[in-house]
This record gives sequence, structure tokens and C-alpha cells, in this order.
Amino acid sequence: MSVRVLVASRNAKKLKELHRVLDAAGVNGIELVGLDEVPPFPEAPETGATFEENALAKARDGAAATGMPCIADDSGVEIDALNGMPGVLSARWSGTHGNDGANTALVLAQLGDVPDERRGAAFVSACALVIPGGDETVVRGEWRGVIGREPAGDGGFGYDPIFRPDGDTRSAAELTPAEKDAASHRGRALVQLVPALAALAG
Amino acid sequence: MSVRVLVASRNAKKLKELHRVLDAAGVNGIELVGLDEVPPFPEAPETGATFEENALAKARDGAAATGMPCIADDSGVEIDALNGMPGVLSARWSGTHGNDGANTALVLAQLGDVPDERRGAAFVSACALVIPGGDETVVRGEWRGVIGREPAGDGGFGYDPIFRPDGDTRSAAELTPAEKDAASHRGRALVQLVPALAALAG
Repeated sequence: MSVRVLVASRNAKKLKELHRVLDAAGVNGIELVGLDEVPPFPEAPETGATFEENALAKARDGAAATGMPCIADDSGVEIDALNGMPGVLSARWSGTHGNDGANTALVLAQLGDVPDERRGAAFVSACALVIPGGDETVVRGEWRGVIGREPAGDGGFGYDPIFRPDGDTRSAAELTPAEKDAASHRGRALVQLVPALAALAG
Repeated sequence: MSVRVLVASRNAKKLKELHRVLDAAGVNGIELVGLDEVPPFPEAPETGATFEENALAKARDGAAATGMPCIADDSGVEIDALNGMPGVLSARWSGTHGNDGANTALVLAQLGDVPDERRGAAFVSACALVIPGGDETVVRGEWRGVIGREPAGDGGFGYDPIFRPDGDTRSAAELTPAEKDAASHRGRALVQLVPALAALAG
């Protein structure tokens, strides 16, 4: 019999990514359940000061509402020359929520005078696992790179077109989905949850 | 005979402010000279990572070009919930240089979900004094407050309308010039240069 684990996301790609991580680690006996498969419950706004806080709050809400162990994530980009911002404000950096074009254009303008050697950045993902009446685990995955001078590529989403991973000459939006997947900050975080999930599967 | 000191600014208010600081400290024998009173020289762009770096670069340029001791400043606002940004990017935060309305609107939008207890901020000024062939001094003045929910007042400039100094219910744009002056971050920095300037005056 398998353990049902809620993934606090409506994004099918995230569920698949976690499936692959569990498969690669040889973890069996876990059935992943998306938000669409459970009755709706009130979701708290993401107002934490850190990715970890937001991920943990979401996972706690999901676990409390359903009684299932719950996994949640929060991610964004941390830019060195902006002291680690946009960070938790990545999705609303330009003032409007989820406007990728405006967000990347604003970052490029803010960094207009910042020289190449100070354009370092990281895609960051925090993932939390909350077990009702049990442990809470929060982990962080990072993908380092630099912020380019202009957008490149039309794959991916968010800040992908202006983020050039270390060791590559292409932007994240120019990588194939498989390449991006292999390097993903969320993948690097999720893999750290494997021991706790394996223990859960028994 | 008085020592001539270049103030690397075209802003008459800054010269007057420094005059008042020197008068209040009883420092005589210093003649302040503005950029408009010396032959033009190439001024480096402000691309430093800190206010201190920018102030020092400007003061070095002025001292090198004129042979006079030179004072320069760089200032901006550091917002806690933005990890100390806009900082050195204060003037171009919205992407366009010097658009006060766009800069304050962007900060308010970015902080839309940030609760009152995390809205702390500081106006910061770094001032540098460079003596040709002699010492370099850099000091920092801060004025703490919080970022409000909407602009208030039409005095001042820059981020004044959204900055409410600690211990006050008004924004910096609602203070009288004299009140603002008495609290000014630049004034708090300049006063720290008094010992070096007094030594210069002999």
C-alpha cells in the first residue's frame, strides 16, 4: 500500500519532476496527489521574507487541510548586485504580478551600469515537506549563473531569457527542456527531500 | 589665509548645508568651492557597488583634477525588505534615471504584501574627503524610518513622500525644510568630516 503525498501545486510539470526525482532515487510506495485532486482549501498569501518561509507555510496549509503529508515549493532569482533581490518578490518585481517581460526588462535596466564581473545570480528553490503531527523539512536548491545584457531565447519562463547558467554560453531560455531539467534548482532541492520521503514510504 | 576645498556638486543647497555644519562646529578658515567655479573635468559614472565607493571615486576625481582637497557624497534609500536596495541604484530603480514618481510607485508596488513590521528603511549618505597626496576619509550618515503605504506631502524630492522618519507621523516630504535639514542623513555624515576639515584649516 502506498502513502499519498499532496504536492501543493496545480502545475503538472512539477508533479512530473518530483515523480522523476523519486524514480531516479528508487523510492517506491509514494502516490503524488496534486491540488486539483483534493477539495479546495484557503491558501495563505506568499508574504514571507524568505523562500523557505513561503514553502513551509504552503506545506503546512496543505497538510492541515488534507491530513496528508504535503510538499510545497517557492522559487525565484537572487541577483548579487541587487543584494539577493528580487528573491521572494521575483514574480512581482515590476509591480504587476506575473508579467515576465516587465520583470526582466526592469532587472536589465536596473543593472544597466553594473559591470560583467558583478552580474552573478542564482535561481533558487526552497521545498518543504510537512508531515501532519510529524517532522517538518525545508531544503534549498540553487542554480548559479549571470544576468545577461539582453533577453535571449523563447523557451522557459520567468527570468530564463536573461539568466545564463555558469559554464554555458546560452540563456536558460535557450536550453532544451531536458537540459534545463537536469540543472533545475527545484530538482536540486527535491532530491534533498528523498531521504525523508523514503522514510515515509517505509 | 583660508584653505580652498572643492565640493563635488552643482547643488547650491549642498554647499550651504556644509557651510552650516562647519559654522556650527566653529570651523573657520575653509573656503568651499562648487563644481561650477572650477574648469570642467571628466566625471566618472557612478557605478560602484556602495555609496562609499561612489563618493570616494567622485572625491578622488575632483582632487586629482583641481589639486584641491575635495568633498563628494552619494546617497539613496536602503529598504530592509529589499535587502538594502535600491541603495546605489536609488535614482534609477524604475529603470529610467531620476524619475521620482516612477521610483516611489515601484517601491510601493514591490512592498505591496510586506507587512508593517517589515517596512523599515534608512536614508543613507556617504561623504568622502580626499586630500591630494594626503588622507582619504569616508563617512556614512543614516536616517531611519519606515516606508508608508502611499505617497504623502509635496516637499522634498526622491523617496521623501513615502519615507516616514522614526518618531514622526509625517513623511519626509511633509516636514519643513528646517526640520528635514536637522535630521538629514547627509548632515549626519558631514558632521563626521569636521575633525578632518578642522585639521586641514590648521
